[in-house]
Amino acid sequence: MSTPLLEQLIDALKVLPGVGAKSAQRMAYHLLERQRDGGRRLAEVLAQAMAQIDHCQRCRDFSETPLCALCASPSRDRHLLCVVETPADRLAIEQATGFRGLYFVLQGRLSPLDGIGPRELGLDLLAQRLEEGEVHELIVATNPTVEGEATAHYLAQLARARGVRPTRLAHGVPLGGELEYVDRGTLSHAFGGRVEIRE
Amino acid sequence: MSTPLLEQLIDALKVLPGVGAKSAQRMAYHLLERQRDGGRRLAEVLAQAMAQIDHCQRCRDFSETPLCALCASPSRDRHLLCVVETPADRLAIEQATGFRGLYFVLQGRLSPLDGIGPRELGLDLLAQRLEEGEVHELIVATNPTVEGEATAHYLAQLARARGVRPTRLAHGVPLGGELEYVDRGTLSHAFGGRVEIRE
Repeated sequence: MSTPLLEQLIDALKVLPGVGAKSAQRMAYHLLERQRDGGRRLAEVLAQAMAQIDHCQRCRDFSETPLCALCASPSRDRHLLCVVETPADRLAIEQATGFRGLYFVLQGRLSPLDGIGPRELGLDLLAQRLEEGEVHELIVATNPTVEGEATAHYLAQLARARGVRPTRLAHGVPLGGELEYVDRGTLSHAFGGRVEIRE
Repeated sequence: MSTPLLEQLIDALKVLPGVGAKSAQRMAYHLLERQRDGGRRLAEVLAQAMAQIDHCQRCRDFSETPLCALCASPSRDRHLLCVVETPADRLAIEQATGFRGLYFVLQGRLSPLDGIGPRELGLDLLAQRLEEGEVHELIVATNPTVEGEATAHYLAQLARARGVRPTRLAHGVPLGGELEYVDRGTLSHAFGGRVEIRE
């Protein structure tokens, strides 16, 4: 009964994460009623992005050029390489820290049951890069999950075998957290890994 | 530092209602990582919808044709006309009830302070339609808000002046609601408007 094109739009919007039938409907009506220009612009940029954004040949992050802006930058420290699971993780580290080295984006984590092995994560590319000898420290910033830890373990071995020092992010009590509400695993880890208070 | 096109995409996604910087980022990465085809399809349908969907000349609902499918349908009862504020309201009534009449979509409600008067809601079009004499009953289904009620009042006068019977949706305790938790206004209204229990 409704406009077929409108139904198509509602259906197409459901491809977005966390958007169900009701939100898609609300979005479609919002765009039609109040944001025609924004909608047109979104359609344009989206088509471009889907067609042009590929992976950086060097770090596997998203990039519209063969080499991403970061890998191509001459001002980054080529001796430090930080390995992350996703582009979102890279962005989080880039925004939160003063890290001036380079990144390598796995686009996933080791998960043999899902058929995700070293090849799928581009670890051959990483191994080759470590063998080039430019990288001195491999900062492993995978997520502190079971699969992330397994991946970290694998990466550390990969680095050591090539004479590169592997490090990983410190685990412990989050800043601003209250001990009472910190989960047991984290608290136990933070307690065991306590550090000297320096003067 | 990030791909400019990716940043443009994240920015463009923020036009969607309820989508901020963080969600937009998550959506962009999701589309790039897992839903390229869906993203392409969305871009295509969105561009089409923004360009082609206009308002039905008769009911003001969204339509890609001059007359929407519903207004063009020969199987609907032309004596009943239901007035709603938005296309979403029309859809809700269409999905929930067995209503077989036609609709008129105001695309808003009377709100003099925002410069929304009878002309903006297409009430001249509605008045003209009521004068044609085909409509016998005008079902006013505006929202039970202050502005919606004012609009309903205006519409009822408009109908009466043209010999059309105005009706409105019943207000009362919602089905499945518990009296204890129903707001006072609704409860008082439902109590005052109590109806005979028929055998």
